[in-house]
Amino acid sequence: MEESKVPLPTLERLATYLRYLNESTNRDEVTISSARMEEATGIHAAQFRKDLSYFGEFGQPGIGYKADELRQRIAAILKVEDTQPVILIGAGNLGSALLGYAGLPQHNFPIVGVFDNNANKIGYKLWNRTIEDIADLKAINRELKSQIAIVCVPNAAAQKVADQLVDAGIRVILNFAPTVLRVPERVFVRNVCFVQELMVLSFFLSPGLQAGD
Amino acid sequence: MEESKVPLPTLERLATYLRYLNESTNRDEVTISSARMEEATGIHAAQFRKDLSYFGEFGQPGIGYKADELRQRIAAILKVEDTQPVILIGAGNLGSALLGYAGLPQHNFPIVGVFDNNANKIGYKLWNRTIEDIADLKAINRELKSQIAIVCVPNAAAQKVADQLVDAGIRVILNFAPTVLRVPERVFVRNVCFVQELMVLSFFLSPGLQAGD
Repeated sequence: MEESKVPLPTLERLATYLRYLNESTNRDEVTISSARMEEATGIHAAQFRKDLSYFGEFGQPGIGYKADELRQRIAAILKVEDTQPVILIGAGNLGSALLGYAGLPQHNFPIVGVFDNNANKIGYKLWNRTIEDIADLKAINRELKSQIAIVCVPNAAAQKVADQLVDAGIRVILNFAPTVLRVPERVFVRNVCFVQELMVLSFFLSPGLQAGD
Repeated sequence: MEESKVPLPTLERLATYLRYLNESTNRDEVTISSARMEEATGIHAAQFRKDLSYFGEFGQPGIGYKADELRQRIAAILKVEDTQPVILIGAGNLGSALLGYAGLPQHNFPIVGVFDNNANKIGYKLWNRTIEDIADLKAINRELKSQIAIVCVPNAAAQKVADQLVDAGIRVILNFAPTVLRVPERVFVRNVCFVQELMVLSFFLSPGLQAGD
């Protein structure tokens, strides 16, 4: 992405810090040290300080960072200060789980529309939200004005859905279909694949089960 | 992990190749070129060849790789040649979606046990599988002999569950709870956090919606 000069691993860590800060505001943490952040996120304190210095200095040596200011700064960098409405494509099991997941609206990512191509689902309610026909996506998204889509459809349908999303003005896609989506340069995709996660983990298995050791 | 000398990004790419090869065996692809792999996975052909050369040469210049041999070699590296039984902790919406996901058994990761601590769920069936009491995890896993766990519990319960998993002989954890699990050095954790994925994507949003451009 040309607009981005921030490396992806840095963005991923910033998101980790922000998620923690969002959750910690309830706990009245006025200042937060890099040591505390390391404890909470598992990311080294030195890495945390380095990541922040990338965006200008805003901590105080020996005291730490003002939690609320830090949260606002990182939210501004990640463009999540305001609510970002999300649309969900695929009203299957995973789609339903995501729609019911309270963490999304809590972190300013409410799902504002659910779409499917299955006539047995369209018009029915899922978590009190009516499932819309994907054929109406472009028209409905003129109202919803969502730029973020979550794709939870079978592989065979995923590319067609991606094309429809791009046509409806979606700029970024979180893709759960285990396939490579072809989109224009200006559209950004992140893939989550449970099978791949398990394959990577499998590498770290020892040859034999050592239960309870 | 001391047993590992393979960098994590390489492992992640190997998992991508393997997922594709597993799915492509049905399509009677006898040989596969690096160009074809690039087309299928989005990973550059040169990167693919470099990743494989790391484990010794097994392609033929100008012809490509024997798909079946390649699949077996990568499966051996990732230790997914045999079925790896998986246990699932948390019979909520996401847990239910994962239990119903056909991709897991298809790729040799069948979920063989489901556990929860909720008395309203224990003993009931989810996708035709009885939900077990997490208190019985260690005893039941002596039979199941699973080394892989998927954690889909609320944040507040996640660390206790992690401790129980370690005690029951689990070696690797796929964690969906948005919190850092503290586990012994020998146990390996991968975290999937939907909110963080959306935060990273949000960075790539343009200021205004440009629908249908």
